[in-house]
Amino acid sequence: MRISELSARTGVTVPTIKYYLREGLLPEGERSAPTQAAYGERHVERLRVIRALLDAGVSIAETRRVLEALDAPSSRPHDLLGTAHAAVTPPVDEHLDLTDAERLVSGLGWRPGACDPAVLGDVARALAGLERAGFTVPEDVMPVYLASARAIADAEITGVPTDSAEAAVRYVVLGSVLVEPLLLALRRVAEQVASFERFGGAEH
Amino acid sequence: MRISELSARTGVTVPTIKYYLREGLLPEGERSAPTQAAYGERHVERLRVIRALLDAGVSIAETRRVLEALDAPSSRPHDLLGTAHAAVTPPVDEHLDLTDAERLVSGLGWRPGACDPAVLGDVARALAGLERAGFTVPEDVMPVYLASARAIADAEITGVPTDSAEAAVRYVVLGSVLVEPLLLALRRVAEQVASFERFGGAEH
Repeated sequence: MRISELSARTGVTVPTIKYYLREGLLPEGERSAPTQAAYGERHVERLRVIRALLDAGVSIAETRRVLEALDAPSSRPHDLLGTAHAAVTPPVDEHLDLTDAERLVSGLGWRPGACDPAVLGDVARALAGLERAGFTVPEDVMPVYLASARAIADAEITGVPTDSAEAAVRYVVLGSVLVEPLLLALRRVAEQVASFERFGGAEH
Repeated sequence: MRISELSARTGVTVPTIKYYLREGLLPEGERSAPTQAAYGERHVERLRVIRALLDAGVSIAETRRVLEALDAPSSRPHDLLGTAHAAVTPPVDEHLDLTDAERLVSGLGWRPGACDPAVLGDVARALAGLERAGFTVPEDVMPVYLASARAIADAEITGVPTDSAEAAVRYVVLGSVLVEPLLLALRRVAEQVASFERFGGAEH
């Protein structure tokens, strides 16, 4: 199909598609004439993934790295997950103290070598942010965070399809990154429900 | 203390402090001379909160609204939570279909009137993002998301301190917003641990 049809099919404007082509997010179409290229279903599919990542707040550079992970032909699920996480995580600053983060995630079953260090940096940065704000997670709440994170991950990883590498890749990379807004939204709703049950609404 | 000392105490540069003053994030100091103002402990404290919110990716406008919630003198925990969530959530677009979101969060104990509609919009946007990407959360994973969100919220809301309104406000507003990066980071680590246990590492 021509770029105009690709635009109509996906709802992404032609200038935006051209931008993604220039940025290397979308592979070139097949040259069908000197000024014309033909696009196929994989471009439709890829555009949906790009839009989803950008809509989820992933940057252009991070999206490019996630797509590279998706395209890596021989990637196995565990390596891919690390690549996908690293793609959406700032690199670990050498000044970042990982001690508290390591102690905390040992409660998740973490041990050295099982994780990409970037995710440990994420935990350390999150703890540092709380400390800077002077906010302490109560002692009996932290174990619930750890148990919930582990329960979520176990369910997700158990569900990784193993029938095709492509399906596994898609599930692991997109599932990890795109589900984040859903989890945060569900927590906010649950907080309001629990708070309503404990404290009552505005009219009481 | 003078602005230079406030800067030294908090590690926030003087031009940045002046920017926060202009933006109304930080209350003015007490005028001690025509060109000089005196700042106190509440400015130190407030600067830590501002930095924490901005570091967590909250925008200047959202930070201003969260701070307004923190400052509202007669706010009760449940109203505050709604205000804090609304402050960091885009308004609900009238074209947004909330049907699927309402059905999903009924599994959290949600019912009409218990929540600020903004959080429901968050769920709807997250679901729409997944749908656009063609990603379906597996049937046996979604109940784990709901149960985990509810377990987290129950622990958090049970822990709301009731001895002082100020402590409750601080806990609810900051806890909800600032803990998000920690939860996402813990999930990523847990995913890597679970994936390592199921699929093994790179060297196997």
